Amino acid sequence: MYQLHAFATPNSIKPIIALEELGLDYELHTVNVRKGEQQSSQFVELNPNAKVPVLTVGDAVHTMSLTESAAILVYLAERHGALLPASGVARARVFEQLFFHASAISPAFGQAGYFQKLAPEVLPHAIQRFHGEALRTLALLDGTLAKRQFVAGDAYSIADIAHFGWIWRRAFAGVDLDGSPNVARWFEAMSQRPAAQRAIARVEALVPAT
Amino acid sequence: MYQLHAFATPNSIKPIIALEELGLDYELHTVNVRKGEQQSSQFVELNPNAKVPVLTVGDAVHTMSLTESAAILVYLAERHGALLPASGVARARVFEQLFFHASAISPAFGQAGYFQKLAPEVLPHAIQRFHGEALRTLALLDGTLAKRQFVAGDAYSIADIAHFGWIWRRAFAGVDLDGSPNVARWFEAMSQRPAAQRAIARVEALVPAT
Repeated sequence: MYQLHAFATPNSIKPIIALEELGLDYELHTVNVRKGEQQSSQFVELNPNAKVPVLTVGDAVHTMSLTESAAILVYLAERHGALLPASGVARARVFEQLFFHASAISPAFGQAGYFQKLAPEVLPHAIQRFHGEALRTLALLDGTLAKRQFVAGDAYSIADIAHFGWIWRRAFAGVDLDGSPNVARWFEAMSQRPAAQRAIARVEALVPAT
Repeated sequence: MYQLHAFATPNSIKPIIALEELGLDYELHTVNVRKGEQQSSQFVELNPNAKVPVLTVGDAVHTMSLTESAAILVYLAERHGALLPASGVARARVFEQLFFHASAISPAFGQAGYFQKLAPEVLPHAIQRFHGEALRTLALLDGTLAKRQFVAGDAYSIADIAHFGWIWRRAFAGVDLDGSPNVARWFEAMSQRPAAQRAIARVEALVPAT
């Protein structure tokens, strides 16, 4: 059985959707990042980068703790032979979208939210820079989805799961889908998948009632 | 023969090192980002994200233009059967480092450089935030390299190539290796590889003499 340290965050929900899509057994362990639990010495031993999620595998085949949500997606897809084409252009497109998400959308949405909602002072230039980059990268995704049913082509893949996390949490970045009809159509379809609905219910249950 | 659109940038040098390590034929096409050529309509047709590098493949097996430097590394490694372990924990560690680079080191170094050197106004909080994150992620890499010869384990891989780009261009981020002895040792070894030396010479030759 897989063990996953996670919370209700854009990155944590990704491996949970994949585990649900693949029908795998897993146990969730709450790391409440709103209380700073990712900085505890116990968690930092698991991930020196102090970030959720972390997948821990301990079975006859592999023993490891693996960080980086997209690396976890690749590991699960390859081990269980699903959600990632085996070769060719279709496979290359999945990696292209995984790295576009990790290097462009994810930092833009994260910093846009930080400078709009969390920073100790209002810095208009920083807000404009990162909110603008969030809108620019969202428009690129919309252009991709104008030509494709799923983000990497004709088939649902781990690249769709990767993009889902931040699009699900887009309000933090001050972004909506009003001007992005293709992303809106895709997000609606993603949200209706039973695996995504189970994953959302499970991560939301990690947040203590206040 | 592969075609690569590139310039002397942290991301462009990565596929060039891989092409050199793999002994492949390729042709370089200059996109002078200092003159904004990545925004030309011709280039944006190749990559709507307006970023170098782009690998164009047109042979009996595949026809495509592929963006995202790390996706290009994965494609080349898988197609030519080198620089990426075939399975198991060793393979998972390579992807973990590729995504750690793409989501943590690369945006931190890039934004640290922007706010220190290019922003239209001095924003001390933004400088502190991104320069601090560049130093934090560099320290994490140093901790990893204290335990491993290469970034993902005992073998040289595309993860080493991915980290090399920004460590090579670290001055832009206002970072040095004085407090990072393990990164310094690794960078010295990487720099001495003939493939890296040929790649550096080739990207530097893309910059017009002024």
